[in-house]
Amino acid sequence: MEVGVYLLHRLEELGAKSLFGVPGDFNLAFLDLVEDYPGIEWVGNCNELNAAYAADGYARIKPGSVGAVLTTYGVGELSAINGIAGAYAEIVPVVHIAGFPSLDEQKHKPLLHHTLGDGRYTAYAQAAEQFACAHTILNHRDTAAAEIDRVLSDCILQSRPVYIALPTDVGYMKISSDRLKVPLPRVPEPNNTLGEATVIEEILKLVEEAQGDVAVLVDVGAIRYNVVEEVRAFVEQTGFAVYASPMGKSVVSEEYKRYGGLYIGRLTRPEIKDKIEGAKLLLSIGALKSDLNTGNFTTNLDVGRTVELHHATTKIKFSEYPGIGMKYLLPKLASVLSSASIKSKALSIHVPKWTYPIPQESNDTISQAWLWPRMAQFLKPKDVIIGETGTSAFGVQDMPFPDGAVFVSQILWGSIGWTVGSTLGAAIAAREKGLGRTILFIGDGSIQLTVQELSTMLREGLKPIVFILNNSGYTIERAIRGENRSYNDVANWGWTSLMKALGDVDQTRSRSYVVNTKAELDTLLNDELFALAEVMQVVEIGSMKMFDAPYALKASTGKKW
Amino acid sequence: MEVGVYLLHRLEELGAKSLFGVPGDFNLAFLDLVEDYPGIEWVGNCNELNAAYAADGYARIKPGSVGAVLTTYGVGELSAINGIAGAYAEIVPVVHIAGFPSLDEQKHKPLLHHTLGDGRYTAYAQAAEQFACAHTILNHRDTAAAEIDRVLSDCILQSRPVYIALPTDVGYMKISSDRLKVPLPRVPEPNNTLGEATVIEEILKLVEEAQGDVAVLVDVGAIRYNVVEEVRAFVEQTGFAVYASPMGKSVVSEEYKRYGGLYIGRLTRPEIKDKIEGAKLLLSIGALKSDLNTGNFTTNLDVGRTVELHHATTKIKFSEYPGIGMKYLLPKLASVLSSASIKSKALSIHVPKWTYPIPQESNDTISQAWLWPRMAQFLKPKDVIIGETGTSAFGVQDMPFPDGAVFVSQILWGSIGWTVGSTLGAAIAAREKGLGRTILFIGDGSIQLTVQELSTMLREGLKPIVFILNNSGYTIERAIRGENRSYNDVANWGWTSLMKALGDVDQTRSRSYVVNTKAELDTLLNDELFALAEVMQVVEIGSMKMFDAPYALKASTGKKW
Repeated sequence: MEVGVYLLHRLEELGAKSLFGVPGDFNLAFLDLVEDYPGIEWVGNCNELNAAYAADGYARIKPGSVGAVLTTYGVGELSAINGIAGAYAEIVPVVHIAGFPSLDEQKHKPLLHHTLGDGRYTAYAQAAEQFACAHTILNHRDTAAAEIDRVLSDCILQSRPVYIALPTDVGYMKISSDRLKVPLPRVPEPNNTLGEATVIEEILKLVEEAQGDVAVLVDVGAIRYNVVEEVRAFVEQTGFAVYASPMGKSVVSEEYKRYGGLYIGRLTRPEIKDKIEGAKLLLSIGALKSDLNTGNFTTNLDVGRTVELHHATTKIKFSEYPGIGMKYLLPKLASVLSSASIKSKALSIHVPKWTYPIPQESNDTISQAWLWPRMAQFLKPKDVIIGETGTSAFGVQDMPFPDGAVFVSQILWGSIGWTVGSTLGAAIAAREKGLGRTILFIGDGSIQLTVQELSTMLREGLKPIVFILNNSGYTIERAIRGENRSYNDVANWGWTSLMKALGDVDQTRSRSYVVNTKAELDTLLNDELFALAEVMQVVEIGSMKMFDAPYALKASTGKKW
Repeated sequence: MEVGVYLLHRLEELGAKSLFGVPGDFNLAFLDLVEDYPGIEWVGNCNELNAAYAADGYARIKPGSVGAVLTTYGVGELSAINGIAGAYAEIVPVVHIAGFPSLDEQKHKPLLHHTLGDGRYTAYAQAAEQFACAHTILNHRDTAAAEIDRVLSDCILQSRPVYIALPTDVGYMKISSDRLKVPLPRVPEPNNTLGEATVIEEILKLVEEAQGDVAVLVDVGAIRYNVVEEVRAFVEQTGFAVYASPMGKSVVSEEYKRYGGLYIGRLTRPEIKDKIEGAKLLLSIGALKSDLNTGNFTTNLDVGRTVELHHATTKIKFSEYPGIGMKYLLPKLASVLSSASIKSKALSIHVPKWTYPIPQESNDTISQAWLWPRMAQFLKPKDVIIGETGTSAFGVQDMPFPDGAVFVSQILWGSIGWTVGSTLGAAIAAREKGLGRTILFIGDGSIQLTVQELSTMLREGLKPIVFILNNSGYTIERAIRGENRSYNDVANWGWTSLMKALGDVDQTRSRSYVVNTKAELDTLLNDELFALAEVMQVVEIGSMKMFDAPYALKASTGKKW
């Protein structure tokens, strides 16, 4: 079996049924193997950054699987590096395969195109190392399979990107397929038995002392370290009140009766803020305490009343138990903490229902305050809902989601334009998993960075709904600084011509709309054909105010808009 | 004076009248200073990669000046890194300014958005170092001015990118403006007098022995190290026959009577190949011997008959004279080698005129063989002509240029999509310098990577002519591998709708055309209004064959198309 085919087998084993990327002469030979490999579909992107974003979006929809992206040497891999760094920051397992010069070229270092001209053939790999939990240059046939296994295991177990440089010739070298008989590890090593027992005992004691007043706070680690099912079972079995951070949104169904909504420090809605901060015990799962995930570091949680479960550690009040991870701990805790006495006390704690009424406004302009609750009513179970960094991410996180709906956003890394690529990947993954519609909310500034990838969605037969909030530039930047500065302006595009330009030449495979008033948007959202999303649809929400933002953005930047 | 304003003064001094980039919260404060600074115009790009490309294109049109690009921390700077690496490879002086966390944030390392989430605040700077000849994080007010001067001097003298991380607070710290009284060095240190005299003596001897049969071969170093005028004077004063490598194209006017065309190893046209390879002495200026600049390493030049002039060294046959650079050497050589006896012998060597007749073909399909000689007739003096990596770069280099026309291409780095961004920068620089039209040739595959930057050209009031060669995918890749593989296909776009979508909503500021036959293209090129280029124009050259390429590409890949 060729080294390249071995790699494809392992990628497929780890759940990558699609491979994103852009062809280039250092990866064309491998691409022949990809195209001939039945288990993985090649998705050719418009550019490499978008491809990396797509691989990231794909992996997010399939916790426990990897996303994969293929680029060419230098020019391709470096174009993707921001997408890979974002996956690193946000704990997303993306495999980056970069075409690499042949062994002979590495030895003699000819002045090839795509090199720096100074013979430093490994400069790109050295840059890539900054943003990978493991990396390899597959320069040795005898160790190629073991190296592939090593880095892919790290990718899935650490849930971070890895970098594989594949020399053009090595991809075709024949190796044994024996190692494939042993699947790669998908779950971490079991916890130390005694340590785990100690932790369970401690937590049980704290829970009993809390008399049912336990708040569970779910964060991003629950998704990325693939304990979504364990978390859902845990909260259902125990009956504890459950809340989510922005990055943990939609791990637990937002229609679940014991779910109270988002905890974002001082931006938390008042009905639940005190219930969380005042709970006798806080059980935090997979927390990532970044600025925008914590209301700009305004969480007010007493360490002396907090237990933190993480991927590879557990913290109980002021002490830490390294190596005791949540994957095995959660089911055991669920079992211990679901006794009738604990559960009945837990259920006695009231969790206010999260409602989001549409405000009555006297004019017909589409305001941020009106838009998001109205959109919330448009959502259906199992929709994949993607919010671009900016007013969209704040708006989307404000909407209560129907059961099974999935929230996708890049709250830590915050690279504008990211959602367009990730919508492509997410929509492909959603199609594989039989999820519902893929719905993107993005502003007129952000979409300009990566707009061409709408073309790939069309080409792949995907049917996302793309809402473009046209508010004349970078409103999130205006909220931070330079409200009236021209550097926050962007060109106004002809949004309804976009899909025609990007490939729907005869306008049969997509529909484009523009709505400028509440009434127009209302009518569109009530249109059953529109809601069915049987073709790709792009909606310009025009005439939105430049100086308007969802509550949380205004509150966190002090804007009185 | 604020540190940020000091930096702007120095950038302006080095010829950067435009600053490209994308706003982000780590650079907004600096952007206020930019917007208020009269000598530099902010050009907001659609994304950072395109911005880096634009800065690169800008610098290429203004030898001796820098291009400059501003990005934000992490997400922005990493998106630009491929553009910076390309400038590094191709020896282009680009200043990359990246917004950076404040001193206080660097000290306490909060988990900010745009960080990796693990406290490694300098990871991006470490990646950037791979692609910069000098770099700095401006963390100290007292040394900020000196640091700025150090890296900018390296940028201009080494003609390579530099990286400046600007903490949000440091940009506003007040410093003395005293250092501004001393301009930055723009030219290298003079050569060692004795060494230089030795070199001149040696070369004079060789020239005399050559009896006038001296071929000058001009390469990219002549442009990048700003000796264009020196080279022109040298060849005119000596009368030596002169040729160019692809990367040295247009340094010497291609209408100059002693200019014979391109030397590309075995791809050189037969009338001149033997004249160059058989010349008694070859004088090579600023050579960069990369694969695509040498006909894939097929140059056949005898070291024993070659003198190489470089930026910081001179090679005479088998010996090297480090530190003897061409900036000072060329004028002195011109003086010594322009005696009547040398010049009369030089002029006795015949240089065949480079002609490019349009072939007679029996059908009306626009072939590559027909397209480029026809286009050559469309060119005017002082046009800036940009060829995208792919069939376009090969085709453009085949065209004899009128006097003063400028060739722009990325022959070493070869990042597809690069020309769209660089066309923006080049067009702005061309407007500053009063050059002619900016004309881009690009394929339907490459333009998809960076297409949004057409929008910025429109917004900036630029009037480039963009020819899109629609040949159904990545033809250059097909020439290399996978002729019929689907990975070389791209989506077919509605090219004539593009400008409407990208901002010319009422279609008053641009014109779009599609031509499918020789007759149609001929008519368009003969249209005086079209040729005047008074608005931005986009021309789809449709119906080009998937399996067709300029001669050089076919020959170098062995394709019989």
